[in-house]
Amino acid sequence: MESEIAEQQLGFYPLGRNVDLMLGGGKCFFEPKTNNGSCRLDDRDLIKEGKENGWKFITSRQEFDHVQYKPSLLPLAGLFADGHMNYEIDRNPSAQPSLREMSRKALDILEKATLQSSQGFFLMIEGSRIDMAAHSNDPAAHASDILAYYEAVSAVREFVSTHPDTIMISVSDHETGGFTVGRQVTKEYPEYIWYPEVIARVKKSSFEIARQVLAYSGNKKEEFLREKIAKEYMGMSDVTDAELKGLDSTDLETIADTVSEMVSFRAQVGWTTHGHTAVDVNLYAHGNQIDGLLGNHENTDIGVFMANYLHVDLNSTTKRLSTWERYSDILKKAAKMSFNSLEGGEAAHHDSWWKL
Amino acid sequence: MESEIAEQQLGFYPLGRNVDLMLGGGKCFFEPKTNNGSCRLDDRDLIKEGKENGWKFITSRQEFDHVQYKPSLLPLAGLFADGHMNYEIDRNPSAQPSLREMSRKALDILEKATLQSSQGFFLMIEGSRIDMAAHSNDPAAHASDILAYYEAVSAVREFVSTHPDTIMISVSDHETGGFTVGRQVTKEYPEYIWYPEVIARVKKSSFEIARQVLAYSGNKKEEFLREKIAKEYMGMSDVTDAELKGLDSTDLETIADTVSEMVSFRAQVGWTTHGHTAVDVNLYAHGNQIDGLLGNHENTDIGVFMANYLHVDLNSTTKRLSTWERYSDILKKAAKMSFNSLEGGEAAHHDSWWKL
Repeated sequence: MESEIAEQQLGFYPLGRNVDLMLGGGKCFFEPKTNNGSCRLDDRDLIKEGKENGWKFITSRQEFDHVQYKPSLLPLAGLFADGHMNYEIDRNPSAQPSLREMSRKALDILEKATLQSSQGFFLMIEGSRIDMAAHSNDPAAHASDILAYYEAVSAVREFVSTHPDTIMISVSDHETGGFTVGRQVTKEYPEYIWYPEVIARVKKSSFEIARQVLAYSGNKKEEFLREKIAKEYMGMSDVTDAELKGLDSTDLETIADTVSEMVSFRAQVGWTTHGHTAVDVNLYAHGNQIDGLLGNHENTDIGVFMANYLHVDLNSTTKRLSTWERYSDILKKAAKMSFNSLEGGEAAHHDSWWKL
Repeated sequence: MESEIAEQQLGFYPLGRNVDLMLGGGKCFFEPKTNNGSCRLDDRDLIKEGKENGWKFITSRQEFDHVQYKPSLLPLAGLFADGHMNYEIDRNPSAQPSLREMSRKALDILEKATLQSSQGFFLMIEGSRIDMAAHSNDPAAHASDILAYYEAVSAVREFVSTHPDTIMISVSDHETGGFTVGRQVTKEYPEYIWYPEVIARVKKSSFEIARQVLAYSGNKKEEFLREKIAKEYMGMSDVTDAELKGLDSTDLETIADTVSEMVSFRAQVGWTTHGHTAVDVNLYAHGNQIDGLLGNHENTDIGVFMANYLHVDLNSTTKRLSTWERYSDILKKAAKMSFNSLEGGEAAHHDSWWKL
C-alpha cells in the first residue's frame, strides 16, 4: 500500500500533515501513472500536490549536500531513488546519501527547527534493507547494510550524548531468514568457526550480480562467469560445476540464490527461510529515562513506552482515524490482504518487492 | 574430563570440598573401571572415597523422596543415572526425579542448612539436555526439556519471591542448533506459521525411538516402522518412502536424524547445524538487586556480577589453583583437547556424548 502511504506522508488524510521531513527512496509512488517509471495506479501527482501545500522536494545528491536549515525549509521531502534506496554494498555515493548522512542531516535540521519549540522532535530511522537482504539470504548485502545502520546509530548516539534531553531506541520488528553465525556444511560434526572474510570479499549484492549476469551479451559466458562474476565480484576461484550451472541461468532469482548460497556456504553462515522467524530480537536504548526499556519486553511494550515518553494520546488519534470513511476502506483493503496472505497472496507480494 | 570433575566435585583437589549437595546423573564417573558400566579409566572408587570423607550417597527415586534435612545429611550426592539423566520426554518418573523436584528439594535442604549461617547458599541448576536435544536437532526432546526447565525456574521464582534476600539468574551459555520457529519447507515463499501440535504428538526422543527401531527383531519391519514408530511414537500417518528408508537403517544416528527431520519438517522449525551458534541468548533475573543484569551484556559480565554479589575473590582462588601441579597437568590436557578440537577432535567427543 505504498501509494496510500505516500499520500498520508504528505498529509492528505484526516489527520493532516504530521511529517516535517523525510529522506529516502520511493519517488515512483509520488508520481502519476502517466510518468515513465511511476508505481502509482492513479493520476495523482503527489509532488505537484505537495508543492501546492508547502512541501519542498529534493531528489539529487547535490541538493542533499547543499540543503541547510532555514525557517522556510520545512516541510521537506528528499526522494533519492525511484524505488528502494540501494543496498549499501551497491550504493553509488555520488548519487545517494548514506543512512548515516541522512541521519545527521535530519538531526541537524530538526534540532534547529525545534530550538524555540517546547515539543522537540521525533525521528524514525529505518535500516530498511537489512530485512530485504535477509529475505534474499544474501550475507554480503546483509552485513553491509547492518554496518551502515550501525554507522547511523553511532551518529544518533553522538547526538543523544550531547543532548541529554533526548533518547534513542534501536530495535528490530522481527528476525528474517533464520540467520545464524555458524553452520554445519558437511555431514561431519561442525567446527565452531565461521569465515567473515568470505563475506568481506564480495563487492555487490546477489541481485545486482544476478542483473549483471543477465545483462551479459558476449559469447564467452563461462569465462565471464568465472572471471568477472566469481573472481572479481565474489572473490572466488573455486566455483563448482553445480554453482556454475546455477549462475548460468536465465532466471534472476535463481542466479541471485546461487550467489547467496555460494557466499553463505563458504562463510559458514546459515539460513532456514526466505521469510520471517519468531526468533527474539535485541532491544537497545541510549540516553536518560530509558529504564522502562531495560530487560526483556514484548514488542508492543516499545510503542507504549514511546507514547508515554512523548505524552501522546494514541486513543484519540485512533478515534479520529476510525471515523474517516476513506480510512475504513483502507482498513478493509488491508484486512483483505492479510486474509490473502494466508492463502499465499503475501508470497507473491514479497516475491516482487524483495527483487526490487 | 568428567572423571576429573567428579573428583573435584567431592573435594579431592587443593581447594578441598566446596560442594554440599549435588543431584543428577553421571554415577559411572564415580565408579572404578572394574565396575560394570563404569566410565572411569582408573581404579578409583569415588563413592567409597567420598563416604570415607563424610559424603552420603543416594541413588534411587525412593531415597530421593524420603531424604529430609538433618544436620548430619550434608554433604549429599544424589546420583540417579549411570550417564546423563534422561530427556524429560523419556523420563520414567518412578525412577528419576524431575528437574523441578530436584530444584525444590535442593532449595529446601539448603535453606534449612543455612538458617543459622550468615553466608547463605549458591545453587546452580542446569537444564543440561536442552543443548543435547538441539545438538540432535530433536524438536520434541528440545521442547519437553525446555518446559521441564521452565518448571524448575518457576519453582525457584516462588522461592525467591518468598525469600527477598535471594536472587535468581537464568541464562544460557550459548545457542545450539541454529533453531528457528518458522522454516521454509518448499521453494515457495513461506507462510508465517509453524505447527507446534506436530511436536506435541511425539512421545519419545529421537534417539530413544532409534534405539527401539534397532531393538526390533520381528519379521514385519515395515509394519512396525509405520504403526509403532511413526503412528504411535510420532503421531504420523503420512510417512514418505524416503523417510521409511531412513528409519529402516542399522545406524542409530541415521535413524535418529530421520526422526528429528520428520518432526522438524512438519512442524516447520529450522536448524542450521548440529553444533553451537553465535546467536544472542536471553538473560533473565528475578529478585532484588538485579539492576546490574538489566539490558544487553557480554557473557563474562554474568560471572563478574555473581562474584561481586556473592563477595567472592576469584583471583585468590585462581592463584591457589594455578600453583597446584596436578591442576597444571589438567590445564595442559584441556589445552591439548582444545587444540584437537580444531582438527576434528571435538567432533568425535561430541559425537559420543550426544548419543549417550
